[in-house]
Amino acid sequence: MKRSAFVLTVCIAAVCLFVLVRAQENTVLTQAKSLFGPLPKVIESKDNPITLEKVELGKMLFYDTRIASDKNFGCIKCHWMNLYGADGMKTPIGRDCKPEKRNSPTVFNAAGEIAEHWTGNRVTVEEQAKGGMQAPQAYGWKTEAEAINAIKSYSGYIPLFQKAFPGEKDPVNAENFGKAIGAFERTLVTPSRFDDFLNGNQKALTQNEQTGLKTFMELGCAGCHNSPFIGGQMYQKFGLTQPYWNLTHSAEPDSGRYAVTKNAGDIYVFKVPVLRNVAMTAPYFHDGSVDHLQDAVKIMAQLQLGKTLTDAQASDIVAFLKSLTGQIPEEALKVPILPVE
Amino acid sequence: MKRSAFVLTVCIAAVCLFVLVRAQENTVLTQAKSLFGPLPKVIESKDNPITLEKVELGKMLFYDTRIASDKNFGCIKCHWMNLYGADGMKTPIGRDCKPEKRNSPTVFNAAGEIAEHWTGNRVTVEEQAKGGMQAPQAYGWKTEAEAINAIKSYSGYIPLFQKAFPGEKDPVNAENFGKAIGAFERTLVTPSRFDDFLNGNQKALTQNEQTGLKTFMELGCAGCHNSPFIGGQMYQKFGLTQPYWNLTHSAEPDSGRYAVTKNAGDIYVFKVPVLRNVAMTAPYFHDGSVDHLQDAVKIMAQLQLGKTLTDAQASDIVAFLKSLTGQIPEEALKVPILPVE
Repeated sequence: MKRSAFVLTVCIAAVCLFVLVRAQENTVLTQAKSLFGPLPKVIESKDNPITLEKVELGKMLFYDTRIASDKNFGCIKCHWMNLYGADGMKTPIGRDCKPEKRNSPTVFNAAGEIAEHWTGNRVTVEEQAKGGMQAPQAYGWKTEAEAINAIKSYSGYIPLFQKAFPGEKDPVNAENFGKAIGAFERTLVTPSRFDDFLNGNQKALTQNEQTGLKTFMELGCAGCHNSPFIGGQMYQKFGLTQPYWNLTHSAEPDSGRYAVTKNAGDIYVFKVPVLRNVAMTAPYFHDGSVDHLQDAVKIMAQLQLGKTLTDAQASDIVAFLKSLTGQIPEEALKVPILPVE
Repeated sequence: MKRSAFVLTVCIAAVCLFVLVRAQENTVLTQAKSLFGPLPKVIESKDNPITLEKVELGKMLFYDTRIASDKNFGCIKCHWMNLYGADGMKTPIGRDCKPEKRNSPTVFNAAGEIAEHWTGNRVTVEEQAKGGMQAPQAYGWKTEAEAINAIKSYSGYIPLFQKAFPGEKDPVNAENFGKAIGAFERTLVTPSRFDDFLNGNQKALTQNEQTGLKTFMELGCAGCHNSPFIGGQMYQKFGLTQPYWNLTHSAEPDSGRYAVTKNAGDIYVFKVPVLRNVAMTAPYFHDGSVDHLQDAVKIMAQLQLGKTLTDAQASDIVAFLKSLTGQIPEEALKVPILPVE
């Protein structure tokens, strides 16, 4: 072979390799776009249009622990902004110092889910907030009227409800409590580098993170963890290949969504959680029984897909998941001052 | 009397009245300046110079509930920024759901006091924070080493301690935990309209508020509630004229500072609280036994000065006290994001 022919062959091979790599990159991006899609700026609802007045009121109510019967309960106590909308505990401690059954899910991006809580027993963020206020085991009031009176006792709230719900005769009510907090939660959307990647900036993710994304899609994780929220769009049995408690450190089995529907098919079924910010919201699973993300990833592959991941595969996926850690909206990180009279 | 003479007389009378009013205003201002003095921007300490690195680390540790043994305790839980550094409760609920003995004092301006807590059992804010971390009834750890390990388990803290305490071999320790939180608290100074008034802007306070200030000083309240912090500089028996529980709604007598010193003279003695932001930090007194500021003012006048205030006097004083509601430093209202690994 002449030298010039050799050089030509090498060049052609290099070009082929380049095209192949680009094509594969494009495949990853194309596949990711089709599975995840663009994250909205806020999560709109026809039933509860987002207004500044509602969001500001909702944030105040979210933070206000004084409106509980013992002046010691509020959304913020399980959903800290500084802990990415979760609480860092296995399960929260409820009334009478009893541990609650399930791990506090993050409120960030939660409005984008099909339903709220691990079992989906609340459909919207508005219903979730309203239900909390009405539940004696949450705010501690026996009747809704007592809860509303507690809010009204800080009379500074009255004009704020009037502004947020103009034209209503008596706007301080449970429905509007839910709507105000819901509107606030609908703004808690956290775009990350992954969204830059989806928008076509391939440098937004490191090679490692892209490999993790590819593995995540190839293994089948995205079969459940999809949509712009990387989850939250369906229910799924936890432990498809074997009982989940074989691999988790769960204290006792939790029948999951069965408690809501009483359908035998819903035993051990939970809502698939959103994976945005998952690296910031340990511990993991509905019972917070696993502390480390790498372990959680391996357990999920085994339980749901019957696959044993290598350490390298799990590390790549963790790298990808970390790229889902997003920017918390600036306004959400500003503490509201509450009315005192 | 000729008309010109009459006009002259009226003019002279008007000028006299004007001079008299000005003189009195000046007297109020002069007296206020001598009693209260200028508020510092931050509260310096020779033993713990304030640096940005310490303040930022301190704020994170202040907010971090995960470093407790149950991942459920931190300064923030009794000292909410949105509740002006207090918690709005009669007394906080501690471990095992037991109510604590005394009302959570605000952390705002607390570094300017002679000592911390109602009984002054901690001298500086640094000692207070360090003591909390070491106390099993607070963070829940049996030994200091366990507490330090809990912090180190979030390894992102290690470089932050190194930056805040440069040149130290092993900077993650109880001493520096106290110093970092102390540095943060030393920035929690809240200037208000009252400071504008002290700086000579007589329009900064309404006539009502100025009357309240005058009454506050004339009655003798400022005998104890003085300094730029309007309190916090001395101990005083609560109930000088009669047992305090005659007028408060206290469940049972609290021996106060006697618990610290075991001196008979310290029975029912408490640190005089800072009155800055007092309108924002109900309920009142060491046991949170009184809900409304107007009632608290009347009770104090009776118990400490043997004086029965009219409603008008009490309202004026409350108006003045509300002018002490200050501006929370912007940085303190920004929620810190905590390291997760």
